[in-house]
Amino acid sequence: MYMNAEIIAVGTELLMGQIANTNAQYLSSRLNNLGMNVYYHSVVGDNPERLKAVLRQALERSDVVVTTGGLGPTKDDLTKETIAELLGLRLVLHQESLERIRKYFKNQKRCMSENNVKQAYIPEGSVIIPNNNGTAPGCIVQKDGKTVVMLPGPPRELIPMFEDTVFPFFEGKTNQVINSRMLKIFGIGEADVETRIMDMIEKQTNPTIAPYVGTGEISLRVTARGSSRDEVDALIAPVVEKIKERLYPHVYSDSGETLEEVVVRLLSDKGWTVSTAESCTGGMLASRIINVPGASVVFDRGFVTYSNEAKMQELGVNRKTLEKWGAVSRETAEEMVRGLVERTKTTAGLAVTGIAGPGGGTPEKPVGLVYVSAFLNGRVETLKLNLAGDRQRIRTVSCHNALDLLRKMLLGII
Amino acid sequence: MYMNAEIIAVGTELLMGQIANTNAQYLSSRLNNLGMNVYYHSVVGDNPERLKAVLRQALERSDVVVTTGGLGPTKDDLTKETIAELLGLRLVLHQESLERIRKYFKNQKRCMSENNVKQAYIPEGSVIIPNNNGTAPGCIVQKDGKTVVMLPGPPRELIPMFEDTVFPFFEGKTNQVINSRMLKIFGIGEADVETRIMDMIEKQTNPTIAPYVGTGEISLRVTARGSSRDEVDALIAPVVEKIKERLYPHVYSDSGETLEEVVVRLLSDKGWTVSTAESCTGGMLASRIINVPGASVVFDRGFVTYSNEAKMQELGVNRKTLEKWGAVSRETAEEMVRGLVERTKTTAGLAVTGIAGPGGGTPEKPVGLVYVSAFLNGRVETLKLNLAGDRQRIRTVSCHNALDLLRKMLLGII
Repeated sequence: MYMNAEIIAVGTELLMGQIANTNAQYLSSRLNNLGMNVYYHSVVGDNPERLKAVLRQALERSDVVVTTGGLGPTKDDLTKETIAELLGLRLVLHQESLERIRKYFKNQKRCMSENNVKQAYIPEGSVIIPNNNGTAPGCIVQKDGKTVVMLPGPPRELIPMFEDTVFPFFEGKTNQVINSRMLKIFGIGEADVETRIMDMIEKQTNPTIAPYVGTGEISLRVTARGSSRDEVDALIAPVVEKIKERLYPHVYSDSGETLEEVVVRLLSDKGWTVSTAESCTGGMLASRIINVPGASVVFDRGFVTYSNEAKMQELGVNRKTLEKWGAVSRETAEEMVRGLVERTKTTAGLAVTGIAGPGGGTPEKPVGLVYVSAFLNGRVETLKLNLAGDRQRIRTVSCHNALDLLRKMLLGII
Repeated sequence: MYMNAEIIAVGTELLMGQIANTNAQYLSSRLNNLGMNVYYHSVVGDNPERLKAVLRQALERSDVVVTTGGLGPTKDDLTKETIAELLGLRLVLHQESLERIRKYFKNQKRCMSENNVKQAYIPEGSVIIPNNNGTAPGCIVQKDGKTVVMLPGPPRELIPMFEDTVFPFFEGKTNQVINSRMLKIFGIGEADVETRIMDMIEKQTNPTIAPYVGTGEISLRVTARGSSRDEVDALIAPVVEKIKERLYPHVYSDSGETLEEVVVRLLSDKGWTVSTAESCTGGMLASRIINVPGASVVFDRGFVTYSNEAKMQELGVNRKTLEKWGAVSRETAEEMVRGLVERTKTTAGLAVTGIAGPGGGTPEKPVGLVYVSAFLNGRVETLKLNLAGDRQRIRTVSCHNALDLLRKMLLGII
């Protein structure tokens, strides 16, 4: 059941450094979920000899070869042609794909060029992978124990094609159902997460547990396989519960939500509202909340009070507080959040003030010093943070902390 | 002088899909700048046989092989060992690197493990690439007409090592100086840019012109080589001027600045200030301006007025305007920006109101309809936009447009 797989990207733009090969990352993660071992990634340009050599080698050393790119309408696009030649297959016109391409151009109110007809030619005996977001269909060819999957390059075409056709295809081959859940973790370091659940990561084979490290955040994907969806979910659930217990209270979602999605959902469930007052994060916190579809129900308004004048005028921070404690202080953060909700009358409020750098730090108040205050139904909690990294990272992690503080207050954790 | 190069990343985390191979993108771009042809990228895990096979093939088919990763202290880290074996070279202790590693641990107040000594062993005859941001030094080995560059995996270690040692090394080999300038372009599509300068892209060999496409933005890197910095700069300058002329007024920077950096610089030069009022962008515009180091001199404050109540209370938008024209209208955008500067007394103001989706669209006011108003010294200009894409893209491109509108007003273009 376990198969060796490799991924080949065909595209000069990758070799020129114009884009990163994010498709390989996505495909690797999903092929691993299918229980395959991904042993190689390659990138090659549209030179016919080099392309052929790379594909020939892949067909020799791997059971499953997934290609991305080179399915376009021009004569430089040679992926299908080369693979068909290596496997000794003819290309045949797939009428349904031709119709789909025609329709695609019609919907876009653009003229279809005769070159695009080439895109509807597919190696004989292929499984077609329909493309709802572009012109090039993909295909799956099987011959002599080898399986080749051909996908177009743009991620917005490739990802739905993989999810809708390729993943179920391999899942069907294994007579197994595969499912996974994504746990999102904040407020604890990578090393600490590993220490607390290392025995689980090492011992578990079904489900497997795979960690991903983001900016100040960690995710764990728990993936199981079995003969039915119920069986798979029953395998995943106790592992998820065990991880949540071991990492309590740091797992903020067991379904892949972002921190802002969790906060918007918790507020929305209670019919509550929130407003923001930001200094160093400068609108990033409001922006993240508003990026959640449906945030308009809970988000009232936000203030970016970068100057001391703005903190006094918009939020009613006392001049004496600013003079005595400074703009970056627990006292100012708390006056900001109290002044904010007094003005907006929201159920909840968040205030952030800090030094994001690169300038502005002093020995007493270094770059990375940030105060975060949250208000909920009359109660105020404040965090003092000492963050590492550049300006962008300090601001991002400050927002994580503000959202997580409100999450914990909403859940009664603090 | 032109050499064929390939990039090999060694790391299981890439094959598991935990990270994307951004190093390959960065290195490709820089090797192209050096005049090399990058023909392949590969990723392989830390399995000794597979690693050896990939490295052997690379040494056969390429003049220059750049490896990333596999220089760590554990017994799984085999890049140096395998390359030394393939080239028939011994590993020798590099005393200076050992001292550097010792010092690195001391500065971090951490204990150095005996395993780390392995990192100071380097193939005999190598050029050492010092690493100021981690423990593993890199090295450049030359044998039998082949050059192998070994770099560690983390980008924050790899990039300075490449810039400080590897780039100058190859530049020195060519007896040439290489330099490039980055033109940033907004307000014109990729196809249109290509049409207007295609003849230049195709005819130019020194300088070369390489396009990069971002979210709603395009960059062009103009790279030249010559015998001195003066000569190179003299080659680049007229090409930059010609592109700027052909794409006028869409080139907003010829030194790689972001739109917000340009706007902050232009305001700062005049001692002027700016404030923001945002609906659908929800703080993203303020956040981008504030992310420019030194923005505190020009940015006064921002309002995220998502609800109609907030637009009336904070910006003095007339209830009748909202009732008659709606929150997403030219009239509301202009009242927002006028109300904003009346309140903040800043020289400039920016207001954005629109429908970022996925919900909230109607046949008359579809998702993607956005109004952007800019105020400068009493004058107001407004743009009506019909943007495509998801919520995040619509918000990002709305901010681009707001910043570009103010840029043009500051420069007297409109």
